[in-house]
Formats: sequence, structure tokens, C-alpha cells
Amino acid sequence: MLKFAKNFRVRQSKEAIAAWFQSLQDDICNKLVKMDGAQTFKEDLWERPGGGGGRSRILNDGALIEKGGVNFSAVHGALPENIKNALKVDEEDFFATGVSIVLHPKNPFVPIIHMNVRYFELKGGETHWFGGGIDVTPHLVLPKDAKAFHQHLEQTCNFYSPDYYPKFKKWADDYFYIKHRQETRGIGGIFFDRLGETPQFSHNDRFEFVQAIGNSFVPIYQRLSNDNRLLDFTEDQRHWQLMRRGRYVEFNLVYDRGTKFGLDTNGRIESILMSMPPLAEWQYDFKPKAGSLEAKTLNWLKKDIDWLNHRGESDGFA
Amino acid sequence: MLKFAKNFRVRQSKEAIAAWFQSLQDDICNKLVKMDGAQTFKEDLWERPGGGGGRSRILNDGALIEKGGVNFSAVHGALPENIKNALKVDEEDFFATGVSIVLHPKNPFVPIIHMNVRYFELKGGETHWFGGGIDVTPHLVLPKDAKAFHQHLEQTCNFYSPDYYPKFKKWADDYFYIKHRQETRGIGGIFFDRLGETPQFSHNDRFEFVQAIGNSFVPIYQRLSNDNRLLDFTEDQRHWQLMRRGRYVEFNLVYDRGTKFGLDTNGRIESILMSMPPLAEWQYDFKPKAGSLEAKTLNWLKKDIDWLNHRGESDGFA
Repeated sequence: MLKFAKNFRVRQSKEAIAAWFQSLQDDICNKLVKMDGAQTFKEDLWERPGGGGGRSRILNDGALIEKGGVNFSAVHGALPENIKNALKVDEEDFFATGVSIVLHPKNPFVPIIHMNVRYFELKGGETHWFGGGIDVTPHLVLPKDAKAFHQHLEQTCNFYSPDYYPKFKKWADDYFYIKHRQETRGIGGIFFDRLGETPQFSHNDRFEFVQAIGNSFVPIYQRLSNDNRLLDFTEDQRHWQLMRRGRYVEFNLVYDRGTKFGLDTNGRIESILMSMPPLAEWQYDFKPKAGSLEAKTLNWLKKDIDWLNHRGESDGFA
Repeated sequence: MLKFAKNFRVRQSKEAIAAWFQSLQDDICNKLVKMDGAQTFKEDLWERPGGGGGRSRILNDGALIEKGGVNFSAVHGALPENIKNALKVDEEDFFATGVSIVLHPKNPFVPIIHMNVRYFELKGGETHWFGGGIDVTPHLVLPKDAKAFHQHLEQTCNFYSPDYYPKFKKWADDYFYIKHRQETRGIGGIFFDRLGETPQFSHNDRFEFVQAIGNSFVPIYQRLSNDNRLLDFTEDQRHWQLMRRGRYVEFNLVYDRGTKFGLDTNGRIESILMSMPPLAEWQYDFKPKAGSLEAKTLNWLKKDIDWLNHRGESDGFA
């Protein structure tokens, strides 16, 4: 993109951003239905009493996806008091739009994937920023997939700034952390927030980056699911998958800021909690067998693993 | 009990209280093993790095109990900073002992039951109080059982004070409330905290009351399980049970103060989360059939229901 052209471009409006997010939801849903091959999405349109609304879409009991949600919303109105405090702002009116995805696959060798892209305005647009990210939670970590996933993210980020991937990868490691388990939720990915205009990056630059992240979702999920969705797994591995989903529940209900905001502000509860797994298990003090892929997985649920340069061949699936 | 005798009794020490709680754990475990008939408890002894420790006991995959924990602990040491803030106290040292129980039964007609009895000391015993309660979470509310449960609690409370049941019943309704669902966790029971010495009640009076609550656990659970543990249930009712367990997870991870304290203070995680169900389910926007026992159950998950005077015959099981 040519630097001098920036000044000639009109700043993308909140309406244009919301419309693009809506088209992203359509595009991702269409492609996920093709990938799944067995089920389609059920749509619920909802309105927010304070202003705006959304389109929640859920796919259940598919061939690839056991339960998945792809939600779009665009809401506005007076900012609730607790959100003002959390954001440390005084402004009264806000606008927020975004797409949120959580997919719980059937096969434990396919990871849980989460993506969120969002845009936020205060003071009628005077203050505005983008946020979002993609992260994956493998039930069983396959290093070559973890490496391919992080490489895909790095390439997407590097097209916009060499600073993005290292910064946003660390942000994801720190954010998706289950403190009481001393485990990361998964192998991370990228997480970013409050990407506003700077001398280096215009509003439109930020939007283009967020669009690139949104558009990377399907190819990433194809890469992570196509090779693995038909792999045989044992009954023990199915139980392990359900226990890992239990950890996902723990993270989302105890730590996730988006979930907390939704619950605190009386959001549409079924849309907020679409991230909950279809089935989850808690076994008291379960310890995987030494040397098993389950035990190795626990070792890989740590911050600051350099997945880009991981050898990647040690999973027996290379 | 004769009022004039109080002054002649030695105040029960923290050691005596902890010893009694330990004997309560033994007694309840022995009786639950007999009731279950298929499995016994697995015991884990643990020590707290800051002082004290506990005995966690878990029964898995029994005939009556699918997963149940009966935990005793007696811990002491420097009060963590966040607990000081939460309790609004400045004191440095604390002592805490108690028994906590959560039982997830196999049959959906048997409720989840929870009991906690605890004793807390600050300033070497100068400040001290009891807390606790029993509450039940039916997957399917059977009014005659709800009535019998509350009657049992009222009778136990009334032996000590006519104020206890009404006050502690309301406290349970308010405490065990899933705000984001606008549902109570179950049909309540009693909940109380900070029962210290007053002109009306001595330390020993409070202890006797707490002992009575502890001793009421087994007869109450017998009443709620014996009639129902062999009832036939449908596959739909099993799914409903797993969804109600999902609500239990939501309450415990989002609202429960005991769980939050444990997570915040780096308690033994497997003991704190023994309350998690063996298996739980989240179905998107599930609505039970109009007129079904499931739909009626949702109607009964409200605060301020007068279970003592409920007609109780409308469940078809009378």
C-alpha cells in the first residue's frame, strides 16, 4: 500500500465497518457449511433493548463441528457504568460491532478455534479503535500444526507491520492464561486491542489489518481440520477432549473479559455463552500417562513457546 | 439447654471444632458408602504451604453418586491481601476449618446436594465466627421433596432459634442466584455466615447449631435419594440433567465466593473444583416442552418460594 495515498482515502465509517463484518460472517458461515458437509447454521436475529442488535448463528452436531457459533453484532447506546469503569472512560455513548466465533470440533485432533474482530467508537467516533485475534486450543497438541498456525498468523501480520506478530503473540499468551491451573488455554495465537490511529497507522490501515485477520480464519481452520478430522481416536482421547473442554469453560467463565462484560451488561445470554462446549467433563485429579500425547500436550500449554521455530516433527504425525 | 449453665461451660477451642469437623467427615463418608453400595471414597491428604492442610475424599462412578466430594480442611497462617480486602479486616493471622460436600448423583430425580460448615478465627481467636448451610439443586423439582427438605431444615433451625430458618432461607435464595440466567441455582435451603457470639447466643450455642446442621446432612440426603434413585428416566431427562449441571458450573465459576477465594489464594485446585460435575452439557437456547416437568422446574427456580407451605402434590409423584 502506498503511503502517500492515505490522505486521499475517506476514513471508513462505522456503517461500512459493520457491513463488512456482516459480510465476513456470511462468508465464513457459507464456507464452514461446505467444510462441515452435514449441517447448516441456525440463525437467531436479536435486538438489544438499549440500541442495535445482532445475528447469532449456531451449527450443531455436524460432521466436522460438534457445536459452533459465528456471531455478528452492532450495538450502540449509553455506556453502562461498569463498562465505563473497566475502560476508564467518562463518555456516555458508544458504538461497538464485531464478529465472534468459537468452534468445538468432533474429532479431538482438530483444535477448538476462536476468532474475534471488533470495532469500538466513543464520542461520536472521535475516539475509536479495533481489537481482535485468533487463537486455537488443541485437545492434543500437534507441533507441526501449531507451527503452521503461527506461521500463517506471522505472515498475515508481517504484511502490515513486523511489530504486530511478536507483540500480539505475547499478548495472546498473557491473555489466554488459566492462572489457577498454571496452563495456557491452548497454543495461543494473536490478541490485540485498542488499535487506534497513530502517525504510523491510519484508521483505514488498522481496518485493512483486521480484515486480513478475518479473512485468514477459513484457510487457517482448513489447514487445522482437513488433515486431522478423520484421524482415529481412542475412547480415552475422547474423555481427554471433554476434560480439555472443561478447562475452556473454566477460562471463559473465570477470566474472559468479553464473557464478563456480556454477563455484567445483561447481553443476550445465549449468544455470549455460545462459546460453551456441547459436552464437558471434570475428572478429579486426572493425570495423563507419562510419555503420552496427552502428557506432552500439558507440557506445551505454556507461555512464550516459539512455535515459529519449533522443530515440529516430534508428534509422530509428521 | 439451660441458660444458666452456659457460664460453666468452657468455650470450645478451635482444635475441638476442627476435630469435630473431622469426625463429621468420617461419619458422613461412612454412611454415604453404605448408601451408595458400589464404591468407596479415595482419600488425598494435602498440606498447605502457608500452614495446615486437609483431607479430600472423592467417590466416583458409584451406584447412587456419579461423582461426589467430602472435604475437610484446617488451615492457618498469614491472611492473603485479597482476602483481607474482601473481609474488610486488617488482621494478619487467621485460622479456618470446615467440611464441604458436593454430590452429583446418577439419577436425575435425585438432586445435587451441597453442604458446608466452617469456623473462622482472627486475632488468635478474639474474633471468631461460624458459617455454612445446606442447599439442594434438583435437576427436576419434585415439590413434595422440596417441601420435606425445607421442613427438615426448619425443624433443625427452630430447635436453636425461630429466627434462623426464615433469615437463612432468604440468605440462601439471595446467595445461590445465577444473575445472568435470572434463575436460582436450585430450590435453596439455608445459608449463614459470621455467626459470632452475641448476648443471645454464645460461641458454644453457635457450634451446637452448626453441629446439628452437619448431622442433618445424611438424613436429608437419605430422604431425597431413597425414593428417587431407582426411578426410570428418559434420555431427554439425562440430557436435561447434564444441562442443569452446566448451570451449576456457571454459578460456581462466576459467582461462588468460596470458589473465588480458593482460586484467588492458590488453594489446592482439585479440592476446590471437586464441585464440578463429572459431565455437563450446553445446548444452544434449549427450551423445554410446555407443561413438562422440565418446564415446571424452571418455574420453580425462583427466589422466595414458600416451600414449607407448598401444596406439594402437583408433581405427579405424590
